[in-house]
Amino acid sequence: MEDELDRIPTAAGVRRAAEKIAAILPPTPLLPATVGGATVWCKAECLQPIGVFKIRGAWHRLSDLPDSERARGVIGVSSGNHAQGVAWAAARLGMAATIVMPVDAPQVKMRRVRELGAEIVTYDRPGGEDRDAIATALAESTGRTLVHPYGDAWVIEGQGSAGVELAAQMVEQAGGPPTRIVTPCGGGGLAAGLALACPDAEIVTVEPEGWDDVAEGLAAGEIRSVRADAPPTACDALQTPRTFPINFSVLQGRAVGVAVSEAEVRHAMRFAFARLRLVLEPGGAAALAAALAGKVPTDGRTAIVLSGGNVDAALYAAVLAAEAAGAD
Amino acid sequence: MEDELDRIPTAAGVRRAAEKIAAILPPTPLLPATVGGATVWCKAECLQPIGVFKIRGAWHRLSDLPDSERARGVIGVSSGNHAQGVAWAAARLGMAATIVMPVDAPQVKMRRVRELGAEIVTYDRPGGEDRDAIATALAESTGRTLVHPYGDAWVIEGQGSAGVELAAQMVEQAGGPPTRIVTPCGGGGLAAGLALACPDAEIVTVEPEGWDDVAEGLAAGEIRSVRADAPPTACDALQTPRTFPINFSVLQGRAVGVAVSEAEVRHAMRFAFARLRLVLEPGGAAALAAALAGKVPTDGRTAIVLSGGNVDAALYAAVLAAEAAGAD
Repeated sequence: MEDELDRIPTAAGVRRAAEKIAAILPPTPLLPATVGGATVWCKAECLQPIGVFKIRGAWHRLSDLPDSERARGVIGVSSGNHAQGVAWAAARLGMAATIVMPVDAPQVKMRRVRELGAEIVTYDRPGGEDRDAIATALAESTGRTLVHPYGDAWVIEGQGSAGVELAAQMVEQAGGPPTRIVTPCGGGGLAAGLALACPDAEIVTVEPEGWDDVAEGLAAGEIRSVRADAPPTACDALQTPRTFPINFSVLQGRAVGVAVSEAEVRHAMRFAFARLRLVLEPGGAAALAAALAGKVPTDGRTAIVLSGGNVDAALYAAVLAAEAAGAD
Repeated sequence: MEDELDRIPTAAGVRRAAEKIAAILPPTPLLPATVGGATVWCKAECLQPIGVFKIRGAWHRLSDLPDSERARGVIGVSSGNHAQGVAWAAARLGMAATIVMPVDAPQVKMRRVRELGAEIVTYDRPGGEDRDAIATALAESTGRTLVHPYGDAWVIEGQGSAGVELAAQMVEQAGGPPTRIVTPCGGGGLAAGLALACPDAEIVTVEPEGWDDVAEGLAAGEIRSVRADAPPTACDALQTPRTFPINFSVLQGRAVGVAVSEAEVRHAMRFAFARLRLVLEPGGAAALAAALAGKVPTDGRTAIVLSGGNVDAALYAAVLAAEAAGAD
């Protein structure tokens, strides 16, 4: 993986990724929503075929591999969404894929990865096992290429293609490019890609409370790690212990970070259900949650990334039922 | 209302409606889904700003009214979705709107109509009150223009604009125009509009079991009414007692009808949740339900209309929770 860090993601790379992705996937829709009296523009990445933006970076990465690496196969490491992206891209390219996933990943994510033909190796996230070490060892022992979910120039550029689409759609629908992009943030791959795609937009990263290492790092000017006693969060996709220099170097000076509570995330999931008719997973609703909670301004032309919608039915039903019962 | 029946909806009218609607609303996305091993193309009308295709016909109708009629205002009659279409279009045109709605309409639909600035007059649907008679009397006493949810040439043409969009998207995404369009069917306004928009496609209307008067009428060659003892259905948007000649004359010889069970509808709602990350109301899931149940072929280029997503959170949570509990 250290090799990949030598290649820096670029705006030109984002544009090339966007062209490659436009050739196989239609743009996800940009939907207006009224938040605090203002119109914000919601990029519905939950409508990707795998229900999440991760299809972008995985496709850009795997489709750029030379034939010799394709033949050996790929190793992914993921909380469940990048896993589906890698599995989807590998299946389309006829490659073998093995994914290192936390044992407590949502069932729906496990099921989908297997349906896409990939193998799963689990690790003990609650117990603190180091997934990157497991994945690196697996890649070395098998000769397969490791595709990291955010510490990878191709992955960052691929995720940035969402920003290229978004900017064009906002010119068409909102009268100009985005002045601010609010995005859920785990390791920072999507946020860094958006920052490269839209150099004139302010980037706001949104993390669950207690998992806001990127926000703290941006404020401190250096990478921070999530504390070992971080609270439980329903945002399984955003439980990333730390960002990487390849992401942080792009975001520093370009992004500010905010944190949202679990109740704010649930409220955003219900807002998306009732007002947008979109299913969002908790992590996918984080940016919308920040806007609804008034934690980010919505003046100018504000875009909100709805990053994913892979959520177990029982959890989703409980979130909706809580509202019906008057809970938060 | 009899006057309106004198104007017959036309394919040229559908094209004009499509141009008017394209000027104010971006196309709803066309999303692929795998049903029984085949790819079908789902037209996500639940992503309209009001969560349902009804915005199309209402806009075409109200925006064509002369100033003198606009000044007097409009009366709608609706189970809740056309109500929102009329209220949305009236608000945009600065018109007063009153809607005749069943007392047992979903709360979310009542709330949205009021939010859009329209007044509501309720009628006793479970008790069998004739909504058309109430609406006609109200229109006569107030001098306002009555906009019927399906017995109206403009409304039919407006709904048909979904077919114009769909056909263009399928050429782009599916390699050619639709050979079959499967659509939920209440009074037949959407189905008739689609038939006019896509003259080379087979039209399949889908109704809840016991409410399949259009299917029976198409088989018999004459309009049929729903029996007085029709069973309860969660598809509130499809509880239409009979179609009108203006709809039936377009559909006869062009469409076939099928019926779906309540369990099949719930299954389709869960499929849309898990596979498309879209919120569908029961009536909006009827066409998808027919495809998933194997009640319509999916060969050729089959389009499925996902017509609406306005559903109370408690009902939706119960449908999802039933799956988690292993029920149908």
